[in-house]
Amino acid sequence: MSELRRDPLDQRWVIIAPERSRRPRGALGFGHEPLEAVDPCPFCPGHESLTPPEILATREPGSHANGPGWRVRVFANQFPSLTVEGPHGLHADGPYDAMRGVGAHEVIVESPSHDHDLADLDSSQVRDVLLCWRDRLIDLYRDTRMKYVLLFKNRGAAAGATLDHPHSQLIATPVNPIRISRKLDAYREHFKRKERCLFCDLLQHERHDGSRIVRDEGGFLTFAPYASRFPFELMIAPKEHRWSFAELTRHEADAMARAVKDALLRMRLGLGDPAYNFVLHAEPNLHAVPRRSGFWDTLRYDFHWQLIIYPRLTAVAGFEWGTGFYVNATPPEEAARHLRGVDVSDGAVAAWRAAQQGHAERKG
Amino acid sequence: MSELRRDPLDQRWVIIAPERSRRPRGALGFGHEPLEAVDPCPFCPGHESLTPPEILATREPGSHANGPGWRVRVFANQFPSLTVEGPHGLHADGPYDAMRGVGAHEVIVESPSHDHDLADLDSSQVRDVLLCWRDRLIDLYRDTRMKYVLLFKNRGAAAGATLDHPHSQLIATPVNPIRISRKLDAYREHFKRKERCLFCDLLQHERHDGSRIVRDEGGFLTFAPYASRFPFELMIAPKEHRWSFAELTRHEADAMARAVKDALLRMRLGLGDPAYNFVLHAEPNLHAVPRRSGFWDTLRYDFHWQLIIYPRLTAVAGFEWGTGFYVNATPPEEAARHLRGVDVSDGAVAAWRAAQQGHAERKG
Repeated sequence: MSELRRDPLDQRWVIIAPERSRRPRGALGFGHEPLEAVDPCPFCPGHESLTPPEILATREPGSHANGPGWRVRVFANQFPSLTVEGPHGLHADGPYDAMRGVGAHEVIVESPSHDHDLADLDSSQVRDVLLCWRDRLIDLYRDTRMKYVLLFKNRGAAAGATLDHPHSQLIATPVNPIRISRKLDAYREHFKRKERCLFCDLLQHERHDGSRIVRDEGGFLTFAPYASRFPFELMIAPKEHRWSFAELTRHEADAMARAVKDALLRMRLGLGDPAYNFVLHAEPNLHAVPRRSGFWDTLRYDFHWQLIIYPRLTAVAGFEWGTGFYVNATPPEEAARHLRGVDVSDGAVAAWRAAQQGHAERKG
Repeated sequence: MSELRRDPLDQRWVIIAPERSRRPRGALGFGHEPLEAVDPCPFCPGHESLTPPEILATREPGSHANGPGWRVRVFANQFPSLTVEGPHGLHADGPYDAMRGVGAHEVIVESPSHDHDLADLDSSQVRDVLLCWRDRLIDLYRDTRMKYVLLFKNRGAAAGATLDHPHSQLIATPVNPIRISRKLDAYREHFKRKERCLFCDLLQHERHDGSRIVRDEGGFLTFAPYASRFPFELMIAPKEHRWSFAELTRHEADAMARAVKDALLRMRLGLGDPAYNFVLHAEPNLHAVPRRSGFWDTLRYDFHWQLIIYPRLTAVAGFEWGTGFYVNATPPEEAARHLRGVDVSDGAVAAWRAAQQGHAERKG
């Protein structure tokens, strides 16, 4: 079982997960080999027996669990960072703090098709992925040991992916991750002083200013954050105040799916199809918070969720590791201007695909 | 000129530096090409005119500034993240905070030899590099606009290096980086309660426990931190309480040079010569702190500097970006055991070099 350890200087929890070193590329816990085809692909239809049992799936009528006939499928990660077993057992380890590796680590296969990433899927399929995220969040938040659920995606070897078949993941943690705690503090501090949601204030400014906006349609805003850490970093968020991803409606999921697909297409056609990560900063688990802590009263007013996309275009170097201080050579205003100008019409996308296919055939 | 922007959610400063996109690989501010030989190498002796003017150098008697005859040479980065010009001009930008990109960004060329990294140099040469770091820190801390100086090194393309010739860098910032502020808080909090240095307490525990120690010799301890974020992460620190890198003596620099060289050789021979970063967490600039702030009274008692080495063996993925929460598949106890067992005797190093040379000749 893995262990959580707290760094007394950084005041940050780290998951020590020897189990992860059993992954195909993981001898000694590391490996830099390029993404190789795993054959047969355990995420493809017909190979369901190669994965842990299914936790949730969007299925065709008449199809059976752990067989084909699914559109989206969720199961535990085979090499989990955290597992759902017993109490977290916070304890001292000499001068340090430690905890058993209690939590969850799941895989959400986004489509039966091995070769189609989110950007290639119908937006109704993307919507179903988002609804699966929501449903897993709701289910995991019934367990008060789970303080936070992070939904994220690694696409491409440079983004840390080990398998090619499009999938996202979630990790449920028994503590609030440091970046989330910091964000909660910022939200709360602002609300205390102004009785307004900080993020709503920022969205209002961004829409008024306009220079960092990539897309403003159907209830969702796509923009390059003012202090982007990475070139072409993007944020997608509901324009109206929404504190809870667990309360996402099907209608909202439809609009969000179109925004996500649009952003991924702009990155693909405008930045040369880079590897990317995204992360959903959803609300923490209110059921896991003591009622008298104050969060209960204000979280629904001061919190606002968002999806953050990081194309992996640059290497992160010593300065960034050492300080948490990032140097970004692409002003977000330039990034937004570039991405706004990308043609993502059906015709342009079809032309890009034809060019890629021609390229692949010439190579093969 | 670059700009510092503060992220209102992360509460983190980011440097937006369009100047950096003019680097060889920097079109649009990004690029993933492998490290290519830049010809002629601007860091080699005889090419001094290809760099900005020299700020400091360790020179042979009779040699002249900006000509050959140096052993270590320091100059401004040609594509600086921050520059020494005027006041920092902290100001509001709508709901955001911004600052002019005031600071410094310098390159320390570690040796005239293009092909010898720190691990290959005599430890007296490594000592001279460390003394140059110290002297630049002292000089920059005379300027009260510089709140912090980070000394760091990127070695290999996977670590963010763009040039092959061995060099380290420094960035002086007009604010304390977030990770340093957090560390200062942790140190101070511990001192307030215990009237002891937190890091001295940790070192005492590590030496007593022993399981994470790689080397304990000559006043410096090399160990794998308890909550290592990355596989085979190492820390090198003075065993006695030392709050100020600016006060490093020549004798201490000698001992530290041997520890650094030893750690880099263990990584090279034990981990297959990986790309790596290191960062020096030195003290902040006391001259830039108001006397009444309290830091003046306690920093020399509660702060303890250290060097942290990160071999770049794994890709950092979405979960890490999204949360600041790291998953590490190699327990630091295993990392330390593995590195303790590496033979770094002169004979073993010579055998490794001969094998590498044979390999290169067979390839060429």
